Amino acid sequence: MARRDDDRGPVNEAEEVSPLTLNRLSFYLRCLRHLQEQGVKRISSQEMARRYHLSATQIRKDLAQFGEFGIRGVGYEVDELAAHLNELLGLDRQHAMLIVGMGNLGSALAQYLGFNYGSFRVVAGVDRDPDKIGRDMGGFVVRSTDDLEEVVRESGAEIGVLAVPAEVAQENYDRLADAGIKAVLNFAPVRVKRRPEVPLKNVDLRINLEELAFFLR
Amino acid sequence: MARRDDDRGPVNEAEEVSPLTLNRLSFYLRCLRHLQEQGVKRISSQEMARRYHLSATQIRKDLAQFGEFGIRGVGYEVDELAAHLNELLGLDRQHAMLIVGMGNLGSALAQYLGFNYGSFRVVAGVDRDPDKIGRDMGGFVVRSTDDLEEVVRESGAEIGVLAVPAEVAQENYDRLADAGIKAVLNFAPVRVKRRPEVPLKNVDLRINLEELAFFLR
Repeated sequence: MARRDDDRGPVNEAEEVSPLTLNRLSFYLRCLRHLQEQGVKRISSQEMARRYHLSATQIRKDLAQFGEFGIRGVGYEVDELAAHLNELLGLDRQHAMLIVGMGNLGSALAQYLGFNYGSFRVVAGVDRDPDKIGRDMGGFVVRSTDDLEEVVRESGAEIGVLAVPAEVAQENYDRLADAGIKAVLNFAPVRVKRRPEVPLKNVDLRINLEELAFFLR
Repeated sequence: MARRDDDRGPVNEAEEVSPLTLNRLSFYLRCLRHLQEQGVKRISSQEMARRYHLSATQIRKDLAQFGEFGIRGVGYEVDELAAHLNELLGLDRQHAMLIVGMGNLGSALAQYLGFNYGSFRVVAGVDRDPDKIGRDMGGFVVRSTDDLEEVVRESGAEIGVLAVPAEVAQENYDRLADAGIKAVLNFAPVRVKRRPEVPLKNVDLRINLEELAFFLR
């Protein structure tokens, strides 16, 4: 799984909501979507905990931070809570994304990984390889990394996705930040030094392997 | 971040250790590695909670499930606890991986995403595209998906990584399971029906976007 992994360690202490809480909220939302698919209208924290292997106390505590959702003895209205979490997580409006690095990973993200879904859309991509510049990716044409600042402005991208080699991740984060991007998702396997005003999320795909290895003991 | 996402919902209820606990253990290990880098020898659950924005109670509770680690009033020995978690997570021995689907994502995972690290090694890859079969990926040569069962046997791979389009993910999970693979990491954006004996971890890259969107509200 992914972590914010800047130079101060796995978590950035400056944030008000911990990454683990955010992670749980996002997970609760997935559970609620699953309940919606199954036609469940109302659920108690106990039942939700039982179904999805969670802690009922933790669910109540996490949700209580953001308002009064459940009714004691009755539980949560699934649709209502899902809508609240959706809004809380900022998913109630569209987010445009720009991919930096249209190599194997960047192309995979842009094309078929389900990255274009719900409120997220890849609207632009840049690369420094002349062979890739000008390539039509369906929704956009790859531009030169030289024009990064211009592409950020013109595309209206809010989220920058770093799919570049480790050694140029920092440089590209800084350029994105200077160009006014609002948040960055980093896939390069390196710690990027973040600025307070531009949230950074490092996606370390290796953590998934570590969690899977548990089952191979 | 990633979730087990089979047909029963985001979490597989059959597991003894919840995915969220595993996730936290893996995260504690990252924190401990960071402390080791900084030369910290001993740390209390309170101090660890403060540094990494965690809950001290949760840390103690999670670790207590697996033995007696900390000493009251003294804290945890960083090296010792890291070694314990390493073993607990099955990271104290090598794990060989086979990638199914050597398209953009499979190639990215094999080549430069830091997937080859620590106790993990990509030892084989298969694809159904004749243009990709025979390609030298550095550590291995791409073989045909037709020979999947043979490649599993010959390579000694324990972990299968699905980097295939959604519509063939289930079929390839089943073939890997039949061929004796011990665990599967699925990057295809689809719910794969798992068998009890072959743990499956679905990596949903979109969850990272959802968590990042929180900062854009």
